[in-house]
Amino acid sequence: MISFTCDYNEGAHPLILKRLAETNFTQEPGYGEDSFSESAREKVRAAAGLPEAEVFFLVGGTQTNATVIDAMLHGYEGVIAAQTGHIAVHEAGAVEASGHKVLTLPAHEGKIVAAELQAYLESFYADAAWPHMVCPGMVYISFPTEYGTLYSKEELTRIRAVCRKYRLPLFIDGARLGYGLCSDACDLTLQELARLCDAFTIGGTKVGALCGEAVVFPEKAPGHFFTTVKRHGALLAKGRLLGIQFETLFTDGLYFAISRNAVQRAMELKELFLQKGIPMYIDSPTNQQFPVLTQTQMDSLKGQVQFEQWERLPDGRCVTRFATSWATPEESVDALARLFSKI
Amino acid sequence: MISFTCDYNEGAHPLILKRLAETNFTQEPGYGEDSFSESAREKVRAAAGLPEAEVFFLVGGTQTNATVIDAMLHGYEGVIAAQTGHIAVHEAGAVEASGHKVLTLPAHEGKIVAAELQAYLESFYADAAWPHMVCPGMVYISFPTEYGTLYSKEELTRIRAVCRKYRLPLFIDGARLGYGLCSDACDLTLQELARLCDAFTIGGTKVGALCGEAVVFPEKAPGHFFTTVKRHGALLAKGRLLGIQFETLFTDGLYFAISRNAVQRAMELKELFLQKGIPMYIDSPTNQQFPVLTQTQMDSLKGQVQFEQWERLPDGRCVTRFATSWATPEESVDALARLFSKI
Amino acid sequence: MISFTCDYNEGAHPLILKRLAETNFTQEPGYGEDSFSESAREKVRAAAGLPEAEVFFLVGGTQTNATVIDAMLHGYEGVIAAQTGHIAVHEAGAVEASGHKVLTLPAHEGKIVAAELQAYLESFYADAAWPHMVCPGMVYISFPTEYGTLYSKEELTRIRAVCRKYRLPLFIDGARLGYGLCSDACDLTLQELARLCDAFTIGGTKVGALCGEAVVFPEKAPGHFFTTVKRHGALLAKGRLLGIQFETLFTDGLYFAISRNAVQRAMELKELFLQKGIPMYIDSPTNQQFPVLTQTQMDSLKGQVQFEQWERLPDGRCVTRFATSWATPEESVDALARLFSKI
Amino acid sequence: MISFTCDYNEGAHPLILKRLAETNFTQEPGYGEDSFSESAREKVRAAAGLPEAEVFFLVGGTQTNATVIDAMLHGYEGVIAAQTGHIAVHEAGAVEASGHKVLTLPAHEGKIVAAELQAYLESFYADAAWPHMVCPGMVYISFPTEYGTLYSKEELTRIRAVCRKYRLPLFIDGARLGYGLCSDACDLTLQELARLCDAFTIGGTKVGALCGEAVVFPEKAPGHFFTTVKRHGALLAKGRLLGIQFETLFTDGLYFAISRNAVQRAMELKELFLQKGIPMYIDSPTNQQFPVLTQTQMDSLKGQVQFEQWERLPDGRCVTRFATSWATPEESVDALARLFSKI
Repeated sequence: MISFTCDYNEGAHPLILKRLAETNFTQEPGYGEDSFSESAREKVRAAAGLPEAEVFFLVGGTQTNATVIDAMLHGYEGVIAAQTGHIAVHEAGAVEASGHKVLTLPAHEGKIVAAELQAYLESFYADAAWPHMVCPGMVYISFPTEYGTLYSKEELTRIRAVCRKYRLPLFIDGARLGYGLCSDACDLTLQELARLCDAFTIGGTKVGALCGEAVVFPEKAPGHFFTTVKRHGALLAKGRLLGIQFETLFTDGLYFAISRNAVQRAMELKELFLQKGIPMYIDSPTNQQFPVLTQTQMDSLKGQVQFEQWERLPDGRCVTRFATSWATPEESVDALARLFSKI
Repeated sequence: MISFTCDYNEGAHPLILKRLAETNFTQEPGYGEDSFSESAREKVRAAAGLPEAEVFFLVGGTQTNATVIDAMLHGYEGVIAAQTGHIAVHEAGAVEASGHKVLTLPAHEGKIVAAELQAYLESFYADAAWPHMVCPGMVYISFPTEYGTLYSKEELTRIRAVCRKYRLPLFIDGARLGYGLCSDACDLTLQELARLCDAFTIGGTKVGALCGEAVVFPEKAPGHFFTTVKRHGALLAKGRLLGIQFETLFTDGLYFAISRNAVQRAMELKELFLQKGIPMYIDSPTNQQFPVLTQTQMDSLKGQVQFEQWERLPDGRCVTRFATSWATPEESVDALARLFSKI
Repeated sequence: MISFTCDYNEGAHPLILKRLAETNFTQEPGYGEDSFSESAREKVRAAAGLPEAEVFFLVGGTQTNATVIDAMLHGYEGVIAAQTGHIAVHEAGAVEASGHKVLTLPAHEGKIVAAELQAYLESFYADAAWPHMVCPGMVYISFPTEYGTLYSKEELTRIRAVCRKYRLPLFIDGARLGYGLCSDACDLTLQELARLCDAFTIGGTKVGALCGEAVVFPEKAPGHFFTTVKRHGALLAKGRLLGIQFETLFTDGLYFAISRNAVQRAMELKELFLQKGIPMYIDSPTNQQFPVLTQTQMDSLKGQVQFEQWERLPDGRCVTRFATSWATPEESVDALARLFSKI
Repeated sequence: MISFTCDYNEGAHPLILKRLAETNFTQEPGYGEDSFSESAREKVRAAAGLPEAEVFFLVGGTQTNATVIDAMLHGYEGVIAAQTGHIAVHEAGAVEASGHKVLTLPAHEGKIVAAELQAYLESFYADAAWPHMVCPGMVYISFPTEYGTLYSKEELTRIRAVCRKYRLPLFIDGARLGYGLCSDACDLTLQELARLCDAFTIGGTKVGALCGEAVVFPEKAPGHFFTTVKRHGALLAKGRLLGIQFETLFTDGLYFAISRNAVQRAMELKELFLQKGIPMYIDSPTNQQFPVLTQTQMDSLKGQVQFEQWERLPDGRCVTRFATSWATPEESVDALARLFSKI
């Protein structure tokens, strides 16, 4: 059975496995001080056009978000996010576990809007009672969002301007960064995005790696970030595992090449659905597609293709999610097309 | 240059890499619900002789300790440990980060002693002010300890009896469990150890895996442990990476076979040092050896072999650590022997 | 200038000061083990009709909420509250500081609704991803709410039924409990309310005391609650200060008598506003009134009477808050009436 | 029965009660913005000779320590204290509850020693593994200590020099500050002490107040300290209660006058014990005395005088604590003398 349930259904890009095997018995120090990690940091800096950036490799997404946010906030501060943001919904309270509130703004197809951010901050400081409330200490956005959508350069620039005005660092969760940057709808390069924020991540887990998220601080990492990572249980002993993966992904543009594959497959999926008259809940230009299926359509696909049920609509139809990844072969899309031709 | 600096200098056992490659494109669900993890849990249960045990796979040691301890304690409780225990010293305050104090007992070559545990608990509850103090809520020991030493069956049984008396769960940190169980000095089997505690871990990171620690609850996991793992940022999206590794390690006794290799190499090292008249700081029967070197000896080895400097003694000599692992070849010991023959 | 800015503008009921003076040199043990606290606990139990209840005295409201909530939740759980709830807005993240998320429901004039609570819980557990989310662990409501409104017996009974169904303890924040119970609109007695929840507080700070909140657990306090109180920095050394105050407030019905005074004054205020053609933002039957004033009206009152500006409406008018208390004399209302007669 | 069990057995100095009564119906804003608190802050600044200091009033000692320490530390830092320090032993883990480890140094009659502090810090940074450990972020001492002892000006100056060298702020817990400053053995004035640290507290609870600790930051308070106080549940709504008390205590030198009374009574007690041939466990120059009593002596006093049993010695004798306070009358010492004359 073909599966489009998520973008972490497979292992890793074969070049990563090959490189792991090649280097397996090279003795290297732990905790990210190995030569692979050093090389990977250099390659990430080069790709981001930030020769001075500080780069760290952590294992997973929730871990990375919680660690970075905790490192960037004072105790009395919270982090602003869309109410659909991953940290607000699907991280089991990891941010709160380190003592910080997630301050939510309305989500527009997964995105926050600069004007609403500005209005929130104005109204916060206009309220005489604000010292009794959680201080906004930073802004979190995901790129692409949990709904596959992208901020345009202009949208991001506006958000960044509000952040600057209120001296709030901006953190971009790039768990699916490649799938955003390689979308035709994206008008930002990695270098541009890197200059529009104070911290961002480059997701490996969902983009070809077994695990791993690169954290990039374009200017300067929070003090003692290494220790904060350790304190959060996020320091990998065999840092080489992360170094080798990111070194491979950032050699010869592999990260972007495989990201493009996922987006292309997703666009083919979208085309398939639209041809079949199936509407999309959100017009996502990245690797996640959200077709709205009737119960009859769901039943027809059952047992033949796997996907996620996202949300039941009042009219009984179901918002579903079909995700492609670096590993999705054309054959899977073709197989779905054949299924569609029969229903 | 040969290196004995630690037991995580290399990648993974080749069978693990082979298995990762073989299964790479099999689509499997995330978060430990994959078939490899299920099979690995089954194999771990079998090896431990605990068909009903609950088994989870986490990524790293500090993360695992902090997560398990937080899950097993009430907010007002702390965890008892040797003052040299990993959680007390080398985890950057990860236990405190989740709000719990580490209550330390004297360490005897890395071990706590049942009588001192009993005395501490008696004296705690004899103090009328105890409700103003952190309640002891569980006991943590490492096996082998940070100094390579082992608890005997009798010692462990006595500690367990005190724990039972005070209704304190006992947690065994087995980051190097294989190197303990496969030592000639060990009078415990895995099955026996598993019955003498309420939770224990089986370290993969230091024993043949790229990463990964198995957490075993012989009777019952704390409620909602999956969510607690997620909240600690310790849930791996591609759980298959851990499942495949532990499945491989617990197939055909691989975990124990490679552990024996490390211990054998370590015994050869010890023999070498003693023949050379170099005393050991602690008589460790496991994969870590602690020879006490003079400055002249240190200088002679410099640039030829890597090891850790543990502690400077008042007389100027240095306690060093030479660690072997599953990956240490006989050639490395031979090379050291040749070096010794020249100095 | 007369002030209606809040219900903690004055000191304490004179009988409390008198009693403090009388008992001043009696030597008593600390931490709530004094005879006054014991007597106060007995009187609170009697008033609540709960001879077996466990009663504790803490100092302030935010402190009490954070301590009780932390004591009642597991680490992986959050607390459900109205989005206007005090813990969600005005406690500077004290709940999050102990690691717990506040899970918000829509507020209807400050109240949550049983049906929406039920729908939230159903939908939570219907979502296959719920183990990745913060588990609802208890329900928090305030009585009266932050908007002065009250739950009817029926509303509370329905909420309690949903809580029971999902095994969620219900906690009632009674920072202004007296002003709720003594309203003509209240159809609940203290005894009834006490039987409809698992924990509640009786606010002293706003109802005649210098400070102090009584925490009542009708059935059983969370284990080691005394230590949890201490750990939260909420244990008062001279517990007698709280004991004497609650003993006085719960002797001869003083707490209720002075609460009635506040409500009566508030009803007179409401009458004044309505006669003047000034609408109320919310029809509050308790000591807080929310008249909507025009800028001209605000200007006229300026410098003559103090009150809080709550929220600016789109049409330029301002929702204000006038609070009465146990200490508000008839003269203050008369003075406002005279002011009104001139504008 | 006379009691010397602690220094918070009575209520408050009568002038405080008088002032509370006089000001009772004056309407004042909450949260420390009242005129009494403003006046009290001014008087504290004057007494400390620090016209620019920032002063806050909190309710209790544990609360104050936890709040100040959390505000002054980064997440990855811990606080250095004597192993007998109040925060290390008797605060139920309040410091750990906000995520910070208490890093303990040996205690010498309750005191840390500059040379050992220096050695600890040197050895910490000499250990290559320090980034894996909790960073020392500040130093906590109590003055007087929990054993009644005092740091001399020279000792404090040396500790401060080490702190400066390592850029560690120094925090002095003055829960019994008056009893230290007014001892004949003290060679420090309040002004001098204030210049030798970065934060200190002036205890009210044990020195004449119903409750209350003044926190003084000689140079600058940590950012948003008001919000941190609220977040810790340590912000008193009726801040006037604290303002009035500290205003009274710091008018006409009352705080020092009543402190001297306690110390004088304690010296009389000491004299009594020594005359009786009863040795002191520690030679305390402040209000706490630690006579070592035989079982026979304990039995003789039983039912006639109350005191605390501190620690049982191996020879069966008991270290006891007799505490005097601002409220201890000469009659109590006389009564003890009469008791002694009979045994």
